Amino acid sequence: MGSTKTVTAEIIAIGDELLYGQIVDTNSHWISQELDKIGVKVVRRSTVGDNRDAILEAFRSAEKRAEIILMTGGLGPTNDDLTKPLLAEYFQCAVELVPEALEAVRTFFEKRGRELTELNRLQAHLPTKCTYVPNELGTAPGMWFEENGCVWMSMPGVPHEMKRLMEAFVIPKIKEIYPLPNIYHKVIKTVGIGESWLADLLKDWEQNLPEHIKLAYLPSLGQVKLRLTAFGERMEELQNDVEEQILLAKKIIGKYIYGYNKESLEEAIGRLLIQAEKKVAFAESCTGGYISHLVTSIPGSSKYFQGGLIPYHNKFKNKLLEVEKTVLSEKGAVSEETVIQMAENIKNLFDADFGLASSGIAGPGGGWAEKPVGTVWIACAWEDRTITKKLQLTQDRMLNIQLTAVAVLNMLRTAISGKTE
Amino acid sequence: MGSTKTVTAEIIAIGDELLYGQIVDTNSHWISQELDKIGVKVVRRSTVGDNRDAILEAFRSAEKRAEIILMTGGLGPTNDDLTKPLLAEYFQCAVELVPEALEAVRTFFEKRGRELTELNRLQAHLPTKCTYVPNELGTAPGMWFEENGCVWMSMPGVPHEMKRLMEAFVIPKIKEIYPLPNIYHKVIKTVGIGESWLADLLKDWEQNLPEHIKLAYLPSLGQVKLRLTAFGERMEELQNDVEEQILLAKKIIGKYIYGYNKESLEEAIGRLLIQAEKKVAFAESCTGGYISHLVTSIPGSSKYFQGGLIPYHNKFKNKLLEVEKTVLSEKGAVSEETVIQMAENIKNLFDADFGLASSGIAGPGGGWAEKPVGTVWIACAWEDRTITKKLQLTQDRMLNIQLTAVAVLNMLRTAISGKTE
Repeated sequence: MGSTKTVTAEIIAIGDELLYGQIVDTNSHWISQELDKIGVKVVRRSTVGDNRDAILEAFRSAEKRAEIILMTGGLGPTNDDLTKPLLAEYFQCAVELVPEALEAVRTFFEKRGRELTELNRLQAHLPTKCTYVPNELGTAPGMWFEENGCVWMSMPGVPHEMKRLMEAFVIPKIKEIYPLPNIYHKVIKTVGIGESWLADLLKDWEQNLPEHIKLAYLPSLGQVKLRLTAFGERMEELQNDVEEQILLAKKIIGKYIYGYNKESLEEAIGRLLIQAEKKVAFAESCTGGYISHLVTSIPGSSKYFQGGLIPYHNKFKNKLLEVEKTVLSEKGAVSEETVIQMAENIKNLFDADFGLASSGIAGPGGGWAEKPVGTVWIACAWEDRTITKKLQLTQDRMLNIQLTAVAVLNMLRTAISGKTE
Repeated sequence: MGSTKTVTAEIIAIGDELLYGQIVDTNSHWISQELDKIGVKVVRRSTVGDNRDAILEAFRSAEKRAEIILMTGGLGPTNDDLTKPLLAEYFQCAVELVPEALEAVRTFFEKRGRELTELNRLQAHLPTKCTYVPNELGTAPGMWFEENGCVWMSMPGVPHEMKRLMEAFVIPKIKEIYPLPNIYHKVIKTVGIGESWLADLLKDWEQNLPEHIKLAYLPSLGQVKLRLTAFGERMEELQNDVEEQILLAKKIIGKYIYGYNKESLEEAIGRLLIQAEKKVAFAESCTGGYISHLVTSIPGSSKYFQGGLIPYHNKFKNKLLEVEKTVLSEKGAVSEETVIQMAENIKNLFDADFGLASSGIAGPGGGWAEKPVGTVWIACAWEDRTITKKLQLTQDRMLNIQLTAVAVLNMLRTAISGKTE
């Protein structure tokens, strides 16, 4: 991290509803991530109830541990919401009307055709020691303090209001005040290989990473993300250093990489299909519509998604998809022969370039010795080729559906990009 | 709560990866909910890093605030994992091999055909003051202490291991030690009505609830849960009191209630279809397979789910589902006439009793003045009837898909139970 000293932060979430498990605190995790990105070290997260002593005690102990203290919640106009009066008490100042804040609240309500109540008007009264930070998305303003050797920011608990305040005000302000290291992140998204296999392939590469670049493996369902983080002085250099390492990694694991940063597998599929000017259709048995759902959850997917069929019983695999009755009776619905016919026929039925199929035993019932729960066949047909794969998955129905979907999308990805083995 | 004193708890999550936002702490929220259910009051949640001073300070301040201290994480065999040595240090005792724990770790590895390493063997060394609590699902044991006037439980951070330890050991143990109020919860699940409308209908009922019964509204996507919580001495009475109130509520909002407690809407649909011995099929345009996915995510759905078709373009609505070309060209794909034909024809195509259809503009593109983004038509055909509904939803694609799915499933629910208006 060069010569810059580590800057520390504490996050305090306020509200009984959090402690009692009535709502999930997604704010603290999100703030953690944002601070990590700019090189601020979070040293503690605390959740306290709507309780005077607990909140004051949280203030006192936070200022001993951290330089930056970020608070969410406890800012509504009702009596349970204590953050504002307690901040005034803690910093020993009055609470006074801020005309600019009143104007903002008034405008907020006018735009929505609602009356300003006395309770709402109170939201424009702020501790005199704070800097008023406008909240365009709600009625509780942000409050910024520089007191007791720390900076303090109080934000509403509503996630999108908090996020806007963080992005528009808090993060730029922290960068302005503190000498932070420059940090450059890039995430490599891989599919079709497990974490330990990937780590094994990349062992030498990882050992030779320059000191100022850190690597993290972030596994999720059927996919592994590799996050590279470079710390240093000059942003442009960091970016070059990371890209150089990614080029090296690509030589080793290139065929498993489908994208970078926030691109999802289904987005990557869309991008590839649009580039190749190709269209796709799915015949889903055990995945029950989930793959089509993933693909159509992407805006603009109607450009390349032709349609799907979910023939959940043999009768319909035959009647609607023309899988031969003898194949179904002799080989079974969960067989290589069946998924081949499903993939080829769905392609033709929907005038698609790629036809994909899944058939398996999702569980928990329906398995037997020869084909236990978790046995799945998948296929991809295009041009005059059809490839297949047998998966042996888990005992868990949802997991089997999700893992099959990832495997099918990955099969499609390799087929489009001509990287099948 | 009668005469029993409030029992307090603090939850401590340990791990740098939480503070840096690399993984989400779902444990603390889950533990909050479980403690709330048995009447234990959580007074603080803290997240600390893998740091000696921070963890010891968290122990010291927790024991001042709460009687029950539950910890997750920091239990791996590597050097960053500090919870175990620090508990021994804090309670001033040695760490010694527990033969029973070693046996459990050995068995765990044997079952998986893996070698026991020296690092794994260390996991069987425990502070002498703790009670060893076996962890069947992993290698890090639970540790229970009764020290300094508090009870302490250290659990692994892996969610399913922690949950098993909580359910099998911690919750029963807390109930045994502390005089807790009896609490009876029941959740009423509703669909097809917004929170404020529901609250308005139930205003008088809510005001007349007995003092020992509390009500909470828990809204989620297109659904609202009503949680009734009764506190008192005798469990049987509490149960009767709650059931009595539910009977009264049913008279007012009965037609919106689809189930109770953990039953999901798609599970309720399955139950109703099995009871009625009926089968269903879906023609999904704007929902792109999502409804079929929800229905088939339920084990045993092959008993009543016949199949689905996703004709994403007019051409296939006509070719595969026989929606008339003139209807498509004159009324458009997003029209009442189109969804009527889709619903009736999907029913026949799949030999189903109920045929359902969705067609709409999910967005963000594709809308125009007459049919803006969020315009959706849905239909349900059965026997010789077909009902339709127009929805005017949001600008958000995923939200539109999800809200349409809930509306379609609710239309099916009312059709099966004969409660359509």
